[in-house]
Amino acid sequence: MPGNSFGHSFRITTWGESHGKALGVVIDGVPAGLELSEYDVQKDLNRRRPGQSEVSTPRSESDSVEILSGVIDGITTGMPVSMMVWNKNAKSSAYDYIKNIPRPGHADLAYTEKYGIRDHRGGGRSSGRETIGRVAGGAVARKLLSQKGIDVFAHVAELGGIKAKPLSFDEIRRNVDSNVVRCADTEAAEKMLAKINTARTEGDSIGGIVEIIATGVPAGLGEPVFGKLDADIACAMMGIGAVKGVEFGAGFECAGMKGSQMNDALILSNGKVTPESNQAGGITGGISTGMPVVCRIAVKPTPSISKSQKSVDMGEMKEIDVEIHGRHDPTIPPRMVPVAESMMALVLADHMVRSGRIGPDSLL
Amino acid sequence: MPGNSFGHSFRITTWGESHGKALGVVIDGVPAGLELSEYDVQKDLNRRRPGQSEVSTPRSESDSVEILSGVIDGITTGMPVSMMVWNKNAKSSAYDYIKNIPRPGHADLAYTEKYGIRDHRGGGRSSGRETIGRVAGGAVARKLLSQKGIDVFAHVAELGGIKAKPLSFDEIRRNVDSNVVRCADTEAAEKMLAKINTARTEGDSIGGIVEIIATGVPAGLGEPVFGKLDADIACAMMGIGAVKGVEFGAGFECAGMKGSQMNDALILSNGKVTPESNQAGGITGGISTGMPVVCRIAVKPTPSISKSQKSVDMGEMKEIDVEIHGRHDPTIPPRMVPVAESMMALVLADHMVRSGRIGPDSLL
Amino acid sequence: MPGNSFGHSFRITTWGESHGKALGVVIDGVPAGLELSEYDVQKDLNRRRPGQSEVSTPRSESDSVEILSGVIDGITTGMPVSMMVWNKNAKSSAYDYIKNIPRPGHADLAYTEKYGIRDHRGGGRSSGRETIGRVAGGAVARKLLSQKGIDVFAHVAELGGIKAKPLSFDEIRRNVDSNVVRCADTEAAEKMLAKINTARTEGDSIGGIVEIIATGVPAGLGEPVFGKLDADIACAMMGIGAVKGVEFGAGFECAGMKGSQMNDALILSNGKVTPESNQAGGITGGISTGMPVVCRIAVKPTPSISKSQKSVDMGEMKEIDVEIHGRHDPTIPPRMVPVAESMMALVLADHMVRSGRIGPDSLL
Amino acid sequence: MPGNSFGHSFRITTWGESHGKALGVVIDGVPAGLELSEYDVQKDLNRRRPGQSEVSTPRSESDSVEILSGVIDGITTGMPVSMMVWNKNAKSSAYDYIKNIPRPGHADLAYTEKYGIRDHRGGGRSSGRETIGRVAGGAVARKLLSQKGIDVFAHVAELGGIKAKPLSFDEIRRNVDSNVVRCADTEAAEKMLAKINTARTEGDSIGGIVEIIATGVPAGLGEPVFGKLDADIACAMMGIGAVKGVEFGAGFECAGMKGSQMNDALILSNGKVTPESNQAGGITGGISTGMPVVCRIAVKPTPSISKSQKSVDMGEMKEIDVEIHGRHDPTIPPRMVPVAESMMALVLADHMVRSGRIGPDSLL
Repeated sequence: MPGNSFGHSFRITTWGESHGKALGVVIDGVPAGLELSEYDVQKDLNRRRPGQSEVSTPRSESDSVEILSGVIDGITTGMPVSMMVWNKNAKSSAYDYIKNIPRPGHADLAYTEKYGIRDHRGGGRSSGRETIGRVAGGAVARKLLSQKGIDVFAHVAELGGIKAKPLSFDEIRRNVDSNVVRCADTEAAEKMLAKINTARTEGDSIGGIVEIIATGVPAGLGEPVFGKLDADIACAMMGIGAVKGVEFGAGFECAGMKGSQMNDALILSNGKVTPESNQAGGITGGISTGMPVVCRIAVKPTPSISKSQKSVDMGEMKEIDVEIHGRHDPTIPPRMVPVAESMMALVLADHMVRSGRIGPDSLL
Repeated sequence: MPGNSFGHSFRITTWGESHGKALGVVIDGVPAGLELSEYDVQKDLNRRRPGQSEVSTPRSESDSVEILSGVIDGITTGMPVSMMVWNKNAKSSAYDYIKNIPRPGHADLAYTEKYGIRDHRGGGRSSGRETIGRVAGGAVARKLLSQKGIDVFAHVAELGGIKAKPLSFDEIRRNVDSNVVRCADTEAAEKMLAKINTARTEGDSIGGIVEIIATGVPAGLGEPVFGKLDADIACAMMGIGAVKGVEFGAGFECAGMKGSQMNDALILSNGKVTPESNQAGGITGGISTGMPVVCRIAVKPTPSISKSQKSVDMGEMKEIDVEIHGRHDPTIPPRMVPVAESMMALVLADHMVRSGRIGPDSLL
Repeated sequence: MPGNSFGHSFRITTWGESHGKALGVVIDGVPAGLELSEYDVQKDLNRRRPGQSEVSTPRSESDSVEILSGVIDGITTGMPVSMMVWNKNAKSSAYDYIKNIPRPGHADLAYTEKYGIRDHRGGGRSSGRETIGRVAGGAVARKLLSQKGIDVFAHVAELGGIKAKPLSFDEIRRNVDSNVVRCADTEAAEKMLAKINTARTEGDSIGGIVEIIATGVPAGLGEPVFGKLDADIACAMMGIGAVKGVEFGAGFECAGMKGSQMNDALILSNGKVTPESNQAGGITGGISTGMPVVCRIAVKPTPSISKSQKSVDMGEMKEIDVEIHGRHDPTIPPRMVPVAESMMALVLADHMVRSGRIGPDSLL
Repeated sequence: MPGNSFGHSFRITTWGESHGKALGVVIDGVPAGLELSEYDVQKDLNRRRPGQSEVSTPRSESDSVEILSGVIDGITTGMPVSMMVWNKNAKSSAYDYIKNIPRPGHADLAYTEKYGIRDHRGGGRSSGRETIGRVAGGAVARKLLSQKGIDVFAHVAELGGIKAKPLSFDEIRRNVDSNVVRCADTEAAEKMLAKINTARTEGDSIGGIVEIIATGVPAGLGEPVFGKLDADIACAMMGIGAVKGVEFGAGFECAGMKGSQMNDALILSNGKVTPESNQAGGITGGISTGMPVVCRIAVKPTPSISKSQKSVDMGEMKEIDVEIHGRHDPTIPPRMVPVAESMMALVLADHMVRSGRIGPDSLL
């Protein structure tokens, strides 16, 4: 059944497999009148791209985006924006040895059960390369949001058990891309890097936590019962591969708190009623409060590890040990930063349009 | 914008406010041929109902459900099933003093920002009474799932900082309703109860964690990219009031784990390939694996507390101190158990129909 | 599968059967701040109601509507508006003789094939009574549209082969409810009435054409490819029972025309570019032009006739002759007028909200 | 707002403009296990292509389709199928003279009103070239339907006032592609051709009627109230550019008929209850009856004519006379045949999957 579209009023449809001909996205619902160039999209794709650093896979994918429709003279026309990246660096034969062997921690077995057929080449559509479409779509969402003063950014808050110390939003924004781990606390980043190197040496991998923040979000986004802003963001985040948990504001900490600790007091500030603190993470009752939206996601360790693991050869139906070779990131969070930002931007752009704060037809 | 429907192929639309005339749900997509009586629905509503015990509000709401359509001679016809509960016990005047005062931790301010008008009577639609429609819809979903051997149950896994010890699914099922806290670990339940009583005495409230489990879920449910089963469940759970986090399987623990710990090995069992463990919580790549689905949600402390809090009188636009009186649960998780079960059942029923495992038109 | 909701941004979900307990509608997406009373809805339901005149069934249904949610102090709150009408006058036993006999021209056989079970009492959900929810929803849509100067009205343009002469919109508006046929050409109305009486005497029924007009529709409504305004209206109209055709502007006449006749010339009028004529029926390329939207629908003769017809007793699986007794309109168009108006109003309200011309959250 | 997707369970999203870089479609919801090659799609695109004959525009577009995803070794995988055609033959400068002049009968003015910007090059997205995505998607739908014995075909039933005589389905299927008019009545085809030539000589254009037939459609497709099969088909057909009317079975003729003429008697045939005739056009109460689905659409004359017409230069805001030059079909119906077939196939494929008659995940 269809499951490759996301959003209501600002909607992306993504397509493509890791080792297919190409990957892409169609964005429907981009209002006319937005300035949009391939460079706007390319710069986010470059942040997503592998081969950027020692912590990510050494594959070198150029991932050069082409805008195929919806833009004339650098301005969107209100028509769907189709964008595409050709696959170039695919070595499908490297995956032949696991054609019949579902990899532990991967979706291989689940796909086989569901479809009766599985594209084993580089993980097919379950590959991280699938996120190209999300990031390309997110880049357009981000451009649209920037017109209304909304800024979305993310950083690695924890990796391999090392927690970053709390920093101001400005510090996070400034530092996040200063190191390959995308951790704004540079000291913690050093330790995280050491953890990554140890994991790689051991043929293992490590998990972490990514925090996504949106500032400038106006109060009033989100529908009260089933289209809650946090529910839509949770859906967006949990829909990224390798994410196993999502929380807002105080998050799971709230389970051990008292109401008097958790509730954000309401005060007058510049003649406006506003929360004094932000335990809520910018959303109460599913509706944005005007405070920054703060969301954290738990990212599991890369499932592809070269350590020996138990699996089953489904051709011969016998148990075997398997080692996953190839070019894999020893940890996912640093590369997930632009992906999670994109998903946040997509949800916010959708709600900005849904609520009429951005006109659905035209900015002109 | 519409935000009161949930689900694609099995869909509920809920309506009604805490102190309005009535609350209800329309379920669209119930296949013909399901035996359905008001009793099937009433028994879940009774578990949701306040006034059941010392830990929940002493309001006594009879919440007697009426089936208005879609059933003939105790059998569904494929037509929408409309169900309703009349509001009887509403004392709206008790809320007059907060007509202009948004309650900290509540959605009051956000609603005012969004709609320019707010139904202050008992929280209006942001009240916990809104869940009546979800539970009534969930009861039908549950009935449908039971035909395919799927069982959904939940329990309080942590409350006020007290953690229940790990128990087998059978123990959980057997014990969960044996105490008012809905904690299957009866010893922990005692301690939780003490925490509740302390909080009540202090005019405060406590949070906790609810775990929801679904057994018998076949492999292959969930769409690979944007309709992932865990994304849909996360959306469902985060869409319940007071939930601030959701996780599956190892959840946030995975951030500190290695790939070799997190990955579930694959083995042969009765001639079938199956995970040996369930760190994944029954879902990989967004698709069910055939293992039990295990989800945990963080529930914040009840925002209505009688302790004095800062807020603003929006009539006079001046800061004031407010104490929230009235009949409120000092903790939410025990009553959230049937609500969370309902949301899980709704997602699973939807995916069973979406995937053709349950015929969308008729069971006959 | 779900098929009881209509609209995207302004959406109704209807429920209920002819002889069930009640019928109703939930409207989701009504912006806060609209004045709404039961009278607003009742007056349209009264126009739909049977027993109004000699041309409609003598059943006397009071069809008294109750608003159950979404309104406080006569103002909508942005929450779903649930409305209901109790069924009172149902004589289900009168339908026992056709329990196993699908009526020619009715949906009986199709329902049986689809669901394996059929609510035979008064046609169940395939009855014309199903339109109560549409008309109640349409009344709210109409109220919303009137705030923007949009007026929707319909009239019987042809009945039993008698065509009404062309009249101005003002004449149509003024005269349409002046006679029981709802034909604004009073002379033609006389002849239509005679045709109805002849049909009734013969135990037969007659068809006709209803024309629906919307004035004040701004230019720019409708999405260019798949959400075309005329496509959505066609869907709405063809979704009314007994409608077998729909056309806009010149409609089927265009098949015999030349481009130079069909094209509406563009001129300057009060400094605005506007079509000089309206062959297009107010829509080109799926987008409203600012001219009145003009749509016509073909309505088949009432399928329930007392003349003997061939059918099959599906209990005994043998062919039989059947005469349909009971209280049936000898012709449908007069009562379809308010239903078709409602469907037009629902589409227009949806597009007004979708396009941001009416704020989705609040009018306040 | 998004308006470039069509279908629920089998859904296409189309993109691209007449003179943009490329046009394409993403099909979401194709079950795994369908054999699919570029040839399957190309053969339908070839039937749609201009430059095929004297009755269509002399542009020679190769329109060579590429499948970019969702297929491995000639078999669909359940992943979205993305297909694309590059634009090659675009002479955009030929449209410079109408950059500020909305063409009568076209969507130019409506687009300008809606978006504030318009892609004037070859009509942009309002061009007939937009249907490439529909036809490519329809080809896959058709392939899927053929697995269940459903066949969709169309023919020109009337052109320039010349009506084809009634022919059997077999004759239509056999003859439809035997002449450039796509009229199965070869004698009428001759006369239609003469009408086309006259119109061309006069710098004018002519309209017509296309009839679309689907055989092998099982009983039970369609939702009873708002997802009626005929409503969905009407939406599909009216969503094709230049269509001004749609009817089923007896269609507008029913307005002049009596119930005893319109109703299809029900008889026993091979032990099955079935309609004796097909006035209903294969659908009653919105649900297929098992009889062939028969639909007719009114197609307006090509709006681009070289005869002088009144319009407005929106740069200088003054009235002018305009002659539309360039390569235009003098009549649309012959080329609409494959487009209308595609839309019918898309609706039927969607309903086959929605109803579970075709498994949504896999044919394997």
